[in-house]
Amino acid sequence: MTAPLRVAVLTVSDRSARGEREDRGGPAVAEAVRRLLGAEVVETQVVPDEKDDIVWHLTRFADNVLADLVLTTGGTGISDRDVTPEATRSVISLELPGLPEAMRASSRAALPSAMLSRQVAGIRGKTLVVNLPGSPRGAVECLEAIAAALPHAVAMLRGEGAEAHPASLRA
Amino acid sequence: MTAPLRVAVLTVSDRSARGEREDRGGPAVAEAVRRLLGAEVVETQVVPDEKDDIVWHLTRFADNVLADLVLTTGGTGISDRDVTPEATRSVISLELPGLPEAMRASSRAALPSAMLSRQVAGIRGKTLVVNLPGSPRGAVECLEAIAAALPHAVAMLRGEGAEAHPASLRA
Amino acid sequence: MTAPLRVAVLTVSDRSARGEREDRGGPAVAEAVRRLLGAEVVETQVVPDEKDDIVWHLTRFADNVLADLVLTTGGTGISDRDVTPEATRSVISLELPGLPEAMRASSRAALPSAMLSRQVAGIRGKTLVVNLPGSPRGAVECLEAIAAALPHAVAMLRGEGAEAHPASLRA
Repeated sequence: MTAPLRVAVLTVSDRSARGEREDRGGPAVAEAVRRLLGAEVVETQVVPDEKDDIVWHLTRFADNVLADLVLTTGGTGISDRDVTPEATRSVISLELPGLPEAMRASSRAALPSAMLSRQVAGIRGKTLVVNLPGSPRGAVECLEAIAAALPHAVAMLRGEGAEAHPASLRA
Repeated sequence: MTAPLRVAVLTVSDRSARGEREDRGGPAVAEAVRRLLGAEVVETQVVPDEKDDIVWHLTRFADNVLADLVLTTGGTGISDRDVTPEATRSVISLELPGLPEAMRASSRAALPSAMLSRQVAGIRGKTLVVNLPGSPRGAVECLEAIAAALPHAVAMLRGEGAEAHPASLRA
Repeated sequence: MTAPLRVAVLTVSDRSARGEREDRGGPAVAEAVRRLLGAEVVETQVVPDEKDDIVWHLTRFADNVLADLVLTTGGTGISDRDVTPEATRSVISLELPGLPEAMRASSRAALPSAMLSRQVAGIRGKTLVVNLPGSPRGAVECLEAIAAALPHAVAMLRGEGAEAHPASLRA
């Protein structure tokens, strides 16, 4: 890629949005994406577990901020308040099941509850959106599991791969 | 969890429902869920591969028996009569793709035909529903592959996790 | 199985369809399916990344050619032109998520971009349809990852499994 990844991070947490709990997931994800991918974190935001709020920020990050990559943390579990997968699915046009598969496969040996995660990944316009779990450690481990695939995805979405590496275009 | 898992087991098999073949899958699952999870098996049932019959019992197990966990065995293959995934999907509100992923990943090295399984898992109300394959050995191996995640899921659905382990709540 | 697998191979590539690039994926898949499964390749075709063209050939291979297995190569990535998964999904009645899972799991350690693949597999009538990636090497590696499951699937779809191996019927 010709320019650093531009990444937006969305923390989804009722407690953090109300200020009852410090947001540790968002900063951990931001730090990891800089370390793993040399990315530039262009925006971070904390929202409650409300579908409309999540949709609004995902849409804004993709359509206005023009982030290459949007990472969410939180809201992918099985409680009534967990709606991040539904919000994500409603804004993407292509779903990429292989990213959640890889994250869950990587996590489940050490953390069986990772099998319960409903994380979704997909594409909106030229932006890749990936749900990470809410625990800071789980989110970072999931990001590590897929980090090697992200520059290729972003190069494809930017259209850089088409000129530079025609052979690699055909995934 | 404060109380043992209450589990219902549904065998889906035309032959067993007609009495032409002894149901070995259901008893094997019941034995395994007691051994692996110290669970109480509150009901077992055998039905033919008919979507309406499967739906009726899944609904009853969740809404009336109030089972924590419903395990099915059979009907997840690729023959015309296999409709357990469709029946299951029609009664759940949240699908949990990570459980079938983990079961298939665990089985496919030793049993390649496990790749063909269409097993589904999901949540109806406060009940977790999981499809297991029809062969007794395959069903038990799949249950072993996900057993470590089940107490966490049930605690979440019971709302016990919320008070006891707030940090672990955010899958 | 009583007779060799009858396989049709569909290469999906704008460039190859226009004659701008030699089709290497189709021949590589044909060679691999003969080597791995002793299959007979009954037809090969090259089409552009157009949903209607893909649908037309998939339907013809299943309904008229009566192939046991249809393998596609190409069009499963994340560019705007990649529509093979959508075309495939529109012609199958049962989706088999375990085959793409196994292919992606097998590929991603050596080739992280395999996590981005949107490959689909499923059944139309008595025909199994499986998407392979577009790179010849990736396509062959994916085929190797699932080869052991294919004879069982075809036997089931032919109805041979029912008489010969009733116990194995219940996946």
